[in-house]
Amino acid sequence: MDINRFFPPHEGISLSDLSGLCGAELADAQYSGRIVKAIAPLSRASISDITFAGSRKALPKLKNSGAGAVFVTAKLASEVPPGVAALIADAPPTAFALAGAVLVPSAMRPLQLTSATGVSEAAIVHPTAIIEDGAVVEAGAVVGARVEIGAGSVIASGAAIGEGTLIGRNCNIGHSVTVQHALIGNHVIIHPSASIGQDGFGYVPGPAGLIKIPQIGRVIIQDHVEIGASTTIDRGALDDTVIGEGTKIDNLVQIAHNVRIGRHCVIVAQTGIAGSTTLGDGVMIAGACAINGHITIGDGAQIGAMSGVAGNVPAGVRWAGIPARPMNGFLRDVAEANARAFGKPDRTKMKKRGEGQ
Amino acid sequence: MDINRFFPPHEGISLSDLSGLCGAELADAQYSGRIVKAIAPLSRASISDITFAGSRKALPKLKNSGAGAVFVTAKLASEVPPGVAALIADAPPTAFALAGAVLVPSAMRPLQLTSATGVSEAAIVHPTAIIEDGAVVEAGAVVGARVEIGAGSVIASGAAIGEGTLIGRNCNIGHSVTVQHALIGNHVIIHPSASIGQDGFGYVPGPAGLIKIPQIGRVIIQDHVEIGASTTIDRGALDDTVIGEGTKIDNLVQIAHNVRIGRHCVIVAQTGIAGSTTLGDGVMIAGACAINGHITIGDGAQIGAMSGVAGNVPAGVRWAGIPARPMNGFLRDVAEANARAFGKPDRTKMKKRGEGQ
Amino acid sequence: MDINRFFPPHEGISLSDLSGLCGAELADAQYSGRIVKAIAPLSRASISDITFAGSRKALPKLKNSGAGAVFVTAKLASEVPPGVAALIADAPPTAFALAGAVLVPSAMRPLQLTSATGVSEAAIVHPTAIIEDGAVVEAGAVVGARVEIGAGSVIASGAAIGEGTLIGRNCNIGHSVTVQHALIGNHVIIHPSASIGQDGFGYVPGPAGLIKIPQIGRVIIQDHVEIGASTTIDRGALDDTVIGEGTKIDNLVQIAHNVRIGRHCVIVAQTGIAGSTTLGDGVMIAGACAINGHITIGDGAQIGAMSGVAGNVPAGVRWAGIPARPMNGFLRDVAEANARAFGKPDRTKMKKRGEGQ
Repeated sequence: MDINRFFPPHEGISLSDLSGLCGAELADAQYSGRIVKAIAPLSRASISDITFAGSRKALPKLKNSGAGAVFVTAKLASEVPPGVAALIADAPPTAFALAGAVLVPSAMRPLQLTSATGVSEAAIVHPTAIIEDGAVVEAGAVVGARVEIGAGSVIASGAAIGEGTLIGRNCNIGHSVTVQHALIGNHVIIHPSASIGQDGFGYVPGPAGLIKIPQIGRVIIQDHVEIGASTTIDRGALDDTVIGEGTKIDNLVQIAHNVRIGRHCVIVAQTGIAGSTTLGDGVMIAGACAINGHITIGDGAQIGAMSGVAGNVPAGVRWAGIPARPMNGFLRDVAEANARAFGKPDRTKMKKRGEGQ
Repeated sequence: MDINRFFPPHEGISLSDLSGLCGAELADAQYSGRIVKAIAPLSRASISDITFAGSRKALPKLKNSGAGAVFVTAKLASEVPPGVAALIADAPPTAFALAGAVLVPSAMRPLQLTSATGVSEAAIVHPTAIIEDGAVVEAGAVVGARVEIGAGSVIASGAAIGEGTLIGRNCNIGHSVTVQHALIGNHVIIHPSASIGQDGFGYVPGPAGLIKIPQIGRVIIQDHVEIGASTTIDRGALDDTVIGEGTKIDNLVQIAHNVRIGRHCVIVAQTGIAGSTTLGDGVMIAGACAINGHITIGDGAQIGAMSGVAGNVPAGVRWAGIPARPMNGFLRDVAEANARAFGKPDRTKMKKRGEGQ
Repeated sequence: MDINRFFPPHEGISLSDLSGLCGAELADAQYSGRIVKAIAPLSRASISDITFAGSRKALPKLKNSGAGAVFVTAKLASEVPPGVAALIADAPPTAFALAGAVLVPSAMRPLQLTSATGVSEAAIVHPTAIIEDGAVVEAGAVVGARVEIGAGSVIASGAAIGEGTLIGRNCNIGHSVTVQHALIGNHVIIHPSASIGQDGFGYVPGPAGLIKIPQIGRVIIQDHVEIGASTTIDRGALDDTVIGEGTKIDNLVQIAHNVRIGRHCVIVAQTGIAGSTTLGDGVMIAGACAINGHITIGDGAQIGAMSGVAGNVPAGVRWAGIPARPMNGFLRDVAEANARAFGKPDRTKMKKRGEGQ
């Protein structure tokens, strides 16, 4: 695979140096000087690559691996074949991600679209905007009045930052992104075509049709948040919409006005969270869920894919389904539904209709 | 909360003036000269704010309120604490929205990204386009051949208006929006990254794969429509796609070719409406619904969130669920499902698996 | 209907010429010289229009048609009324689509936003980019370093092509589209605000919150693919994300990292496909489906709308529902649910609650 076109290999680092950076321990000192240059999956890693084996399920691939080195737990170390350096780590995937940050640093933030440094002459920047040295505003980007942008942040070509918005340091605001009425911390990544801070969706019946309830809140995005492509986050109505530190949001997610999401949450693609709902810290919501408004989801709760959550969810639980319920009951219900559907299929009838499995 | 950064307070208006503008009646004339400057929620409103109490559920907050004035129904007027001016209104939320339009007029339409007036020299405007005096086309916006744009409309930086499209007066076309093959009325708001008028999704098997059925219809958007961020509305195949007057569409909604939506409908985020379906007037569809193609939803029907609507829906009903059915049956089914899931939870087992409530 | 504003009629072509181009046979030679200029639906077609009747359901409209010509199967030819030319075709809709390509060629590809030819001086093009003669890069488009763009391709105003991306010939990259880390074939259409090639969504717990697993794969889009508005396709993690030749993807679809979609598939709006799932050739997935990660869907399988697919799906089947199951069982379950909901409604109670049908 010609991956070099986009992410060329590192100049090389020794396993002794790399293991230290990743919190791993080299099992056999003879490999301490071995040089690796890239990350690769277990099945394709060559002698200049580092890879990982996440669990016993990876054993067949591990035994045939020709990798330069592999992150494994202590338990699996004896399964590493001769010629492959074993790097013992408590959490091999985490060690691998840390190795990736060393070997492919360009993949840790979106690449710039242009080779601009500083503020492009072809950017549209209001004279009252304050842009720190070391920030990049690419050609065609729009920066409104009273905006402030911190050092190390990149405003991509085609992005717009509306009046008064504050953006911290080392952020990446992607192409076609719109940010308005927002206060954004440091190390925030917003992927292309996301929309942050437009009006929340609130109307009341008026004398001649629906009238808008003014939406005068803000969007507050804390440090180390990442927001996916075409995700939409509305600003608050009278209060704020808040995305807590370290939370990661995937593509095409809808976050309505006044939603408050805690720290280190994970929200997978196409999920929607209705207005005024609160998520605690460490909440994980899988893809395609519909989360009702005005409810609370407790710290560390996990919601399975395509779930419909109507009421409060306690901390620490795993729920799934429509309506959402504890995971073991949900799985039992799914197993029953599958048994009904697949257990005794009337194959004659199904074949007639061209619908057999 | 520092809301002043984005929506600074009004210079002030007396309650006697404001109540007249909102169709409300001041209960106690001693407050007629009191000046209010901002809107706020009941729990945070101070002496210079106006707020509202929507129902008896708000009574605890109302009793402790320090607001300058509060919209209430006549029934609740006696519950307004001393020092707070009661403004009697038939529909307090509507009166409050009208007050918002007076006190925060800048929140009634999206803010401009730049301080442009008229057509920016950095906009890309075809010489055959007709742009009325008083319209704004910001830097970087694209206006194609034969486009017409009415006075008071704002085409944001980064928006594109394709050849032949007509846009009426006092519209806002947001950043990164694309509008093609469309006829748009007056007072229409389109939020960022919405896509209006691209090809409907129609193919037939051809000699060497699928071939496109030409999509030669239009999108017609009537007056006072609002369209959310990243919402997609395809143009018609041989007929038109129509969005009726006053209809409000949230973010990430999909409207397929030939859909006809009536007047004053509300379509909440992430709902999709398949091709050639017709909605009457005043239809409300909550979020994350999938509406089948070639069906009819009658005037005033309401569909609950995450519903799957396969067939016609009569006027005036409230349906929900997958498949959609009358609301009372749906709620009974949900109650039964919840009783099964939560009624007699085997807490030992659940705790073991870390899934208790 | 004033469709001429966007798609003016053809100068005219005789039925003998047109029938040859569409693989159809003119039933009555007296009409061989008749000229048609436009396509229209059966109900509105006039003497200068061509239309089609897809099945016996169209008979009432066919009998009253005043079309210049109509594509029909041999079986229906005798039902064509006097004065209307019958064009016999094995698949009337396909013949009609082919006629559309002749009569409305401008509808087969998105219209350009500007009248640019070649590379606009107002485009932002890196000096190392290679743009073939005959390609168009509109004002405001961004083309990064080492990008290559083939003849006949149009990069719309407001699109961005990231460093190193290759785009073949006769492609259309729409307004506000972002393409990164991608290899794109010929005759590919990408509609507005789609995002191609941003990071896949992969994190692991790190020392101070979630850390990104570097996403160093690519997006490979083969010939004749069409991608809808605001659709998001993430690049691979360590492998590639692949969209096979001739596959058509609708609006607001999410394709996660490492997904491999075969040839000539159809994916309808708002469906999401989680990471590392593989689709065979000719797979059809209706709208609003959630497809699990790490599963396989066999060649020619069809999935009904709003389905939840958790496990592998065999080739050739038709499945639907949550969880997805064979179509006949699904339809039986829906019929039972509808019978329960609608069979014996307690109308008194329903009326009381305003929820009757």
